[in-house]
Amino acid sequence: MIQDEQQLLVATAELFKERFNIEARTESEVTSIDPEARTIEVRDLRSGTVYREPYDALVLAPGANPVRPPLPGIDLHGIFVLRTIPDSRGIKSWIEDRKAQSAVIVGGGLVGLEMAENLVRLGLSVSVVEMLDQILPPFDPEMAELVQQHLAANQINIQLGSAVAGFAETETGRLEVRTQSGQKLETDLVILSIGVRPETRLAQQAGLQLGKRGGIRVDESMRTSDPNIWAVGDAVESRDFVTGGWTIAALAGPANRQGRVAADVICGRSSSFRGVQATAVVGVFGLTAASTGASEKALRRAGTDSFEAVYLHPVQHAGYYPGASPIHMKLLFSRKDGRILGAQAVGMEGVEKRIDVIAMAIQNRATVYDLEEAELCYAPQYGSAKDPINMAGMIAANALRGDAPLMPWLDMMDSGATLVDVREPEEFAAMHIPGAINMPLTQLRERLVELPLDRELMLNCGVGQRSYYALRILLQNGFKARNLSGGINTFAQFRNRPEFQRSSSTATR
Amino acid sequence: MIQDEQQLLVATAELFKERFNIEARTESEVTSIDPEARTIEVRDLRSGTVYREPYDALVLAPGANPVRPPLPGIDLHGIFVLRTIPDSRGIKSWIEDRKAQSAVIVGGGLVGLEMAENLVRLGLSVSVVEMLDQILPPFDPEMAELVQQHLAANQINIQLGSAVAGFAETETGRLEVRTQSGQKLETDLVILSIGVRPETRLAQQAGLQLGKRGGIRVDESMRTSDPNIWAVGDAVESRDFVTGGWTIAALAGPANRQGRVAADVICGRSSSFRGVQATAVVGVFGLTAASTGASEKALRRAGTDSFEAVYLHPVQHAGYYPGASPIHMKLLFSRKDGRILGAQAVGMEGVEKRIDVIAMAIQNRATVYDLEEAELCYAPQYGSAKDPINMAGMIAANALRGDAPLMPWLDMMDSGATLVDVREPEEFAAMHIPGAINMPLTQLRERLVELPLDRELMLNCGVGQRSYYALRILLQNGFKARNLSGGINTFAQFRNRPEFQRSSSTATR
Repeated sequence: MIQDEQQLLVATAELFKERFNIEARTESEVTSIDPEARTIEVRDLRSGTVYREPYDALVLAPGANPVRPPLPGIDLHGIFVLRTIPDSRGIKSWIEDRKAQSAVIVGGGLVGLEMAENLVRLGLSVSVVEMLDQILPPFDPEMAELVQQHLAANQINIQLGSAVAGFAETETGRLEVRTQSGQKLETDLVILSIGVRPETRLAQQAGLQLGKRGGIRVDESMRTSDPNIWAVGDAVESRDFVTGGWTIAALAGPANRQGRVAADVICGRSSSFRGVQATAVVGVFGLTAASTGASEKALRRAGTDSFEAVYLHPVQHAGYYPGASPIHMKLLFSRKDGRILGAQAVGMEGVEKRIDVIAMAIQNRATVYDLEEAELCYAPQYGSAKDPINMAGMIAANALRGDAPLMPWLDMMDSGATLVDVREPEEFAAMHIPGAINMPLTQLRERLVELPLDRELMLNCGVGQRSYYALRILLQNGFKARNLSGGINTFAQFRNRPEFQRSSSTATR
Repeated sequence: MIQDEQQLLVATAELFKERFNIEARTESEVTSIDPEARTIEVRDLRSGTVYREPYDALVLAPGANPVRPPLPGIDLHGIFVLRTIPDSRGIKSWIEDRKAQSAVIVGGGLVGLEMAENLVRLGLSVSVVEMLDQILPPFDPEMAELVQQHLAANQINIQLGSAVAGFAETETGRLEVRTQSGQKLETDLVILSIGVRPETRLAQQAGLQLGKRGGIRVDESMRTSDPNIWAVGDAVESRDFVTGGWTIAALAGPANRQGRVAADVICGRSSSFRGVQATAVVGVFGLTAASTGASEKALRRAGTDSFEAVYLHPVQHAGYYPGASPIHMKLLFSRKDGRILGAQAVGMEGVEKRIDVIAMAIQNRATVYDLEEAELCYAPQYGSAKDPINMAGMIAANALRGDAPLMPWLDMMDSGATLVDVREPEEFAAMHIPGAINMPLTQLRERLVELPLDRELMLNCGVGQRSYYALRILLQNGFKARNLSGGINTFAQFRNRPEFQRSSSTATR
């Protein structure tokens, strides 16, 4: 999308000198730190000269490196990583020189997917090989599923649960990607986007403490274990704002904040980094996926179990205004006090707006009750009188108050509950959850006698609105019932997931 | 934009009966309330029958009526208000039947401007006649100015400070709009969009207490002065969440919330309405203007003087990504503790997102320091590592911390300070504030001796970035200096404003 490479450079060394009176020495590699003497050793890459430079305060901001695993054939020509502008230049030249027709991207994270789209736009046919059983690891699998479907619809070949075993050159000079399951993919170009690893060589050499996740350990003022050395950015471990655990977040926003905190503290001001919310967004082929706070996976990893999740599929603006399209949302919140723990959303429009609003709410330690009452911009082309944010809050608050309790999707098959689909017969006929009985909302009041009072009911409709009404009717008539959040639309996100299949197959025995 | 009128109807009486078992009696006018007997008198408009109906709890939701002032000629054919679908039908028929070529809209509020755009799209030439010296009364005048320029660029004729004296029919059967200044505008169609007035006829007849602003007075549980009668929506007065004063907010979101609060309380639940933030958005010809919280005007009206305002003009996403366009923002905050009081923004893209995030921040009583640290979605096509929200927070926090103190725009001419424009000479030559001297940032360090140490300096650049650097250099060198927030871009918003002209002419004497 960016035609002129120069546009990617935020500032030059000359601008730093002129504007800030700061000397930025480019092409100068710091080869070691002497924390006792408070000096660094620098090699001038142009002249080869090596010299020592003293410091009062030292800030490490070396970033992170793309992971390049020691697989057979990893050093073959045509296997690239993407970190720097020269990296991207190398990829483009290779494509032009070889008239490349196809590419294999190893890793389905943010960078991998953005590469996939850009290579398709260059005319290549693209495969993504991902070791995990989902793309976009920061997202929960049933949310990533939506992105995966969109990529498939845009001719991207996605292979999940597929670990690369090695690379080889074919007789015709092309590349062959071999997976552990024995599959072979022939291609002109491989891009490794398996993730990044904090660059800690200097820090280790200087004896600075590292964290368990491999990043430089810093305190809230971004100070390392050496009192005269600070570290910021992708090289450090940070506190997760929601779970409180250590995390490595290779994100530009937090890196910026960390730099300011370190500068404040070095200049004698009290300042501290409040942690990382991991707010992130990616756009592929017009679809936007965004998230903030903890995912369900992250909450489980952190040992948090007192949470609930709601799903919803509201349109981004008034349904009657032309161009309405759904936003698929997941909201995670504490069962104890309603505090918002995280949110994920996928859709064509208005996605990042809702995640940004929830990001601000999480920062302020707000609850789902606050989302219910949020007063947001409304005109028909921008939102609804009840914005998706309000709807998410209401569904969550209804669950917490006991007005509309939830049946978690992964529990449904083992619950022993009777599944009642309250949509109209023609909708039921088109698709329904296996095992469901159909009792339309419009007939429910008259047909209550047909439902068991001694067995729990779980309800679904299309997105959750009608099943909410049905649930209220049932609860007020003495039935025991819970809702499947987000209805058939959420089912469509789960049904291909292996963990759901497993749960399902156990239950139908 | 909406072709099918039926799409504007959210629900039918039949749906209410079928889904909720609620009887919705349409074409039934309530003519009076007997609060003692707890009955209402209803007239069936189809049969003419009048009957009494008892109630346990009564909820009034009559909305508001468009103001139709008793001016000469106000009842002429061709003078419309717009509240209901039949109103819009009447306007469309009139335009078609008369082959109308032009329209005059009286009132430049939200409804007036939306009408203006839609009439232009129907091929009419449109004039807006506004009594005040700005359009969009909820906005501060220098923010409304941006919308006004955009309307003018789209061929809308806007007349500010122009009060209508009356209407007449011309000899050829057209309409003539006469202003108090003696101007006459001939047109085919007049739309009155002067504002709305709470519908309080029934409430008054029942002896319910009204507020000073003319709405039904209710408590936090939406109960009127009669313990068995509640009132919600555009007919009531609400508390302003920021200033604490009474206000009338004819907005759909708050009306929805009020309805839920009243229902909760009637059903025996404790629930209260937290007040109105007045979050609003309007789109005209692709431009979006949005606001939340208090305007500067509203703060002054409420007697709040301990606040500051910052202006900024960031682009909506990374500048190097194609399609970057500015968002003009104004942020109001408490000088005491940095609490956010209000925000307004105008631009082509990403406007309502930023206002929604600030709306959530205001709801949580957050500060500008929270905006500084907000962690929002960033990818080049969505935002920046330092989002406009962060930038607004940083500029405000820099002012509060004393790092970059502000000179309010309306004080500049009376301040006696020396105005220094730190842009490059060619920029200065193209446009500058009268009386400014030019000293580019790039030369500032060398030319400090040319500046007075005994007189305050006020600085401007293009948007405020370079003048921030200049200010820091000056303050650290012992000068007394303040910034003009938002630079030349903000000056362009102020320079045509009468209050600025007045201030300016006083000062240059």
